[in-house]
Amino acid sequence: MIRFNCDYSEGAHPRVLDKLIRTNFEQTAGYGEDPYCRLAAQMIKDRCNRPDADVHFFVGGTQTNLTVISAALRPHQGAVSAHTGHINVHESGAIEATGHKVLSVPSHDGKLTAGQIQRVYEEHYGDLNHQHMVQPKLVYISNPTEIGSVYSKTELTAISETCRKNDLILYLDGARLGYALCAEGNDLDLPAIAELCDAFYIGGTKIGLLFGEALVICNPKLKEDFRYIMKQKGSILAKGRLLGLQFIALFEDDLYFEMSRHANRMARLIKEACIRKRYSFLVPSNTNQQFPIMPGEVINKLALNYVFEYWQQVDDKSSAVRFCTSWATELKAVQQLVAEIESY
Amino acid sequence: MIRFNCDYSEGAHPRVLDKLIRTNFEQTAGYGEDPYCRLAAQMIKDRCNRPDADVHFFVGGTQTNLTVISAALRPHQGAVSAHTGHINVHESGAIEATGHKVLSVPSHDGKLTAGQIQRVYEEHYGDLNHQHMVQPKLVYISNPTEIGSVYSKTELTAISETCRKNDLILYLDGARLGYALCAEGNDLDLPAIAELCDAFYIGGTKIGLLFGEALVICNPKLKEDFRYIMKQKGSILAKGRLLGLQFIALFEDDLYFEMSRHANRMARLIKEACIRKRYSFLVPSNTNQQFPIMPGEVINKLALNYVFEYWQQVDDKSSAVRFCTSWATELKAVQQLVAEIESY
Amino acid sequence: MIRFNCDYSEGAHPRVLDKLIRTNFEQTAGYGEDPYCRLAAQMIKDRCNRPDADVHFFVGGTQTNLTVISAALRPHQGAVSAHTGHINVHESGAIEATGHKVLSVPSHDGKLTAGQIQRVYEEHYGDLNHQHMVQPKLVYISNPTEIGSVYSKTELTAISETCRKNDLILYLDGARLGYALCAEGNDLDLPAIAELCDAFYIGGTKIGLLFGEALVICNPKLKEDFRYIMKQKGSILAKGRLLGLQFIALFEDDLYFEMSRHANRMARLIKEACIRKRYSFLVPSNTNQQFPIMPGEVINKLALNYVFEYWQQVDDKSSAVRFCTSWATELKAVQQLVAEIESY
Amino acid sequence: MIRFNCDYSEGAHPRVLDKLIRTNFEQTAGYGEDPYCRLAAQMIKDRCNRPDADVHFFVGGTQTNLTVISAALRPHQGAVSAHTGHINVHESGAIEATGHKVLSVPSHDGKLTAGQIQRVYEEHYGDLNHQHMVQPKLVYISNPTEIGSVYSKTELTAISETCRKNDLILYLDGARLGYALCAEGNDLDLPAIAELCDAFYIGGTKIGLLFGEALVICNPKLKEDFRYIMKQKGSILAKGRLLGLQFIALFEDDLYFEMSRHANRMARLIKEACIRKRYSFLVPSNTNQQFPIMPGEVINKLALNYVFEYWQQVDDKSSAVRFCTSWATELKAVQQLVAEIESY
Repeated sequence: MIRFNCDYSEGAHPRVLDKLIRTNFEQTAGYGEDPYCRLAAQMIKDRCNRPDADVHFFVGGTQTNLTVISAALRPHQGAVSAHTGHINVHESGAIEATGHKVLSVPSHDGKLTAGQIQRVYEEHYGDLNHQHMVQPKLVYISNPTEIGSVYSKTELTAISETCRKNDLILYLDGARLGYALCAEGNDLDLPAIAELCDAFYIGGTKIGLLFGEALVICNPKLKEDFRYIMKQKGSILAKGRLLGLQFIALFEDDLYFEMSRHANRMARLIKEACIRKRYSFLVPSNTNQQFPIMPGEVINKLALNYVFEYWQQVDDKSSAVRFCTSWATELKAVQQLVAEIESY
Repeated sequence: MIRFNCDYSEGAHPRVLDKLIRTNFEQTAGYGEDPYCRLAAQMIKDRCNRPDADVHFFVGGTQTNLTVISAALRPHQGAVSAHTGHINVHESGAIEATGHKVLSVPSHDGKLTAGQIQRVYEEHYGDLNHQHMVQPKLVYISNPTEIGSVYSKTELTAISETCRKNDLILYLDGARLGYALCAEGNDLDLPAIAELCDAFYIGGTKIGLLFGEALVICNPKLKEDFRYIMKQKGSILAKGRLLGLQFIALFEDDLYFEMSRHANRMARLIKEACIRKRYSFLVPSNTNQQFPIMPGEVINKLALNYVFEYWQQVDDKSSAVRFCTSWATELKAVQQLVAEIESY
Repeated sequence: MIRFNCDYSEGAHPRVLDKLIRTNFEQTAGYGEDPYCRLAAQMIKDRCNRPDADVHFFVGGTQTNLTVISAALRPHQGAVSAHTGHINVHESGAIEATGHKVLSVPSHDGKLTAGQIQRVYEEHYGDLNHQHMVQPKLVYISNPTEIGSVYSKTELTAISETCRKNDLILYLDGARLGYALCAEGNDLDLPAIAELCDAFYIGGTKIGLLFGEALVICNPKLKEDFRYIMKQKGSILAKGRLLGLQFIALFEDDLYFEMSRHANRMARLIKEACIRKRYSFLVPSNTNQQFPIMPGEVINKLALNYVFEYWQQVDDKSSAVRFCTSWATELKAVQQLVAEIESY
Repeated sequence: MIRFNCDYSEGAHPRVLDKLIRTNFEQTAGYGEDPYCRLAAQMIKDRCNRPDADVHFFVGGTQTNLTVISAALRPHQGAVSAHTGHINVHESGAIEATGHKVLSVPSHDGKLTAGQIQRVYEEHYGDLNHQHMVQPKLVYISNPTEIGSVYSKTELTAISETCRKNDLILYLDGARLGYALCAEGNDLDLPAIAELCDAFYIGGTKIGLLFGEALVICNPKLKEDFRYIMKQKGSILAKGRLLGLQFIALFEDDLYFEMSRHANRMARLIKEACIRKRYSFLVPSNTNQQFPIMPGEVINKLALNYVFEYWQQVDDKSSAVRFCTSWATELKAVQQLVAEIESY
């Protein structure tokens, strides 16, 4: 069986692992207060063109999301999210467990629009009894979204302006950020994201690290006492340097983008095979996740040799499935899958 | 200005107030451990035909809801609610503040159906990654709903069976329960509700008390240590007897239902006037809340003499508004309103 | 049996009740947005000489405490309290349920000192790993304390200066504030308290109201969005005017202080009887709570005719008990108790 | 500078790291549902002689503690802990952030006794108003404690019996468990601990892993839906196999105990040097942490060449410091330190 079910089936890219091996016997301070974390943070700030940002390293995405949102909001405030947002669906109520409502908004492609955000804002304050309702205060978006779509610079700029006009915090979940930044047609880069968002994270777990997410806090108001809240949520790794070292490996050359481009290319081969078979897609994607809609019998046959994710039923005969690629996906494996897709 | 904007514009029914006056100088134990609370609890158990139930008295509805849900659920469990449910919209995130997600379900009339509940259940457990999602565990319904509709015995029985089959807790918010039980066409009564629900409350604040809600816990699993959690949430009134005394006034004769019937009759006069004017309604209601859809200019004229609630825009020219009656609504005031409605 | 076990055994002072009776049929807006609440708030601001303060009305003390603390603190911050503090002992973990640690400090008389607060502050920031510990941010004191002692102006001024120097919030729980302000030897008044504290409440439940506490927020930083958090915690009373009306009764003449003085006088008679019998006291008190240490057999005999609270064992033969008086305590009843104490 | 300040200054034991390297390119399922996690869990169950236990893997100790306690307790229940307990002091309020009070008990050596636990229990239920106080429900102990002391089998048995008699949950934090089990004089082993505790964890972060703690749940009542709560708290590692693989390395031979014994031996050399210098100790310890009390000038001199932790001032001239050893501590480094200690 070959796995296309997610982008974290293997360990880490060898250059990442190598960093850990070569420093294994060094002694450093714990809790991220070591030279490697400092260097990694500096590299990220440089890449983002934000010398004033704060960078914090986390082990995983749910932790990052719940720590940021808990740190940013007062008790009566909520996070606006597309209904497909990870925090709304797949974190077992992590945000609510910190006391905050997720104010979910319908979305057909996983993205929020500036107009939707403006409407949520106006509907709240337009109600005389708004103090009886959760106050929208933070906007949560993912790029790429949970279903593979990508924000354009125009879209993100409009969202950012809407947030700033209304004193809303814009937070971008970049669990798979590299795949978005390397997607065909993308016009965003790290400096633009750092400019437009109050905080965002650069995901590593799903792009070649053993684990690790680098949170970048751009808005000074979100910086105060942040490490207290990380500690409280169990988000500070004792041997914090493991995170710093891995991010150094990502950014000391172009490894982060190199791996992202590879995964996107592999995904594109799958996409093109599906197009040739005239399969439609749940949502258009130029990133490492593809959601073709396939007849049930094809799905069943493919499932004999490949692991991929069943997503949702579309009609009586067809369902959407997810194929996911990563830095470790081999061309040979993709070619074998593509051949099989085309053969049915 | 005459108020039709809610059912808590006045103080209490004189027979309720009289109870407080006549006992004012008596000395009793605090925190609801007095003879009046015991008597009131017994009267309610008798009315519900549930000698085994536990009855607890609260000052308000939000407190009741948040205490019950916090006591009933483990951290990863959520409350299923119609998207119009009070806990989902108008409690400023009170449920989330206790750590739990409200799993909202669309509803056109404010009610949930057994089928919807079954679907929520199946969709959760049908997903291989269900441990990454909030577990549906409690079903929250209101009767009457926030928009005036009423459950039939058939509907509530189906919901109850669905909940028991799937080990879900059924909790009924009865903030305006009397209005439902006295509504034209209603076929539910207190014993049936006590039989079908795991817990529910009989609302007093909106039916003639100064304040007060009587929670009836039927399911023994929900009883353990309940008063600890009441205390923790600030839900135990020091001079608890004030609650017992008021509920004695409600149930020592038929006052609760007498007041509810009066309010429903007054609301019906308004409804009939709207029907005569061929206004349609946001949702059909036989209870004390009416939601006619009126032209903007009519609304503006009525607003000169009456206080009522703007509900939502329906189209370019018309909006739904809410008229609300209570035990204290005078026939004369309604007749004046009706005449004015008919005059435009 | 005559009750001396607490100060909330009866209903309300007749002048308080009368306010509710005379306004019972008036229509007003709900949720505290009525003219009576506005008037009561104005009267309290006048009494405190703080036209800029915000005043909010609550039903009970636990609710007030948990709402204020939840509104004031970020997740990693805690409330410093004497270990005898109500929030540390008798609120079933209400503060922790909002996510905050109570940082308890030993105290022999129920009071905190400026020196203790300074030490807590320095110990926290003196530790290199202070981000691994709860940050002290709010100081909770009660006046009178839970065991009847009273802060002097000198003491409160020193505490206030320590808090301001260290950017700590000073919050005073005034559940029985009147008894402190009318105690023999007291030199504090409402304007001084309003000047020295960031927020405090004037308790009514334990001084002659059916229920009610008036929170005074002096520090502008604590005002923002406060009503959202009240609603979230279930702390907004639907018929809010009941609170406004009762506080008008307290402050339109000197009723609050009149009742407090009466209770203190009654308590003093009990205290003097104990002194004549050479009983010592758990803690010296000039307020309405007295904690004499009595031989077990005396306690047993008194318990045949009076309800009072067993407090704690002191040695093999003796225990401290609590006698509590109120506005409703009759001289006749006290004289009977005093005679009996002296007879053993 | 040589670090003796903690037991997590280096990476991982080479045999641990090797496991990760050799499996790096394998594809497995995520979230701990892979064969390596299953194997590691089985090995641990075998070692504990508890085929019925559930084993879950976490990245860090704070996460483990907060997840277990949040999963085990209802909202009104608290965790009894020595005041020196990690959850009471060094987790930034992690337990309170999940809503629960830590009920701290004074302890001179970091340990709780069965008698203390019984007293907490009796004091709670002995109070008529116990529903106004946090209910003690879980007992948290650490072995070794935060200050290096170790429970004997007799002590732990007495604690366990007290807990079972009173229906309290016994949870043991084993962040450094290996050091206790290999300490001179220890008579506990994994099967005994599994027999006596309801849940405990075997710490890896501080004993030779990159990171990782293995929670063993023995009491079936604590098992239900545990993974939901792990996910909610951000405690499930995406590439969960990294945890399984590391624990296989610990237990496929005696590596866990081998490393613990080495660290204890190194610590003993430091201890003996201090004894020779007639330094006393804050608390007697046979584990990898030593807390000698040294004159200030000696501390200052040692601080020029070694990193160790300042613990607390003892008198005008002396303070307690902490020296900590690990699997990676080299004999040569210890000999150098010992020589220097003896030279002053």
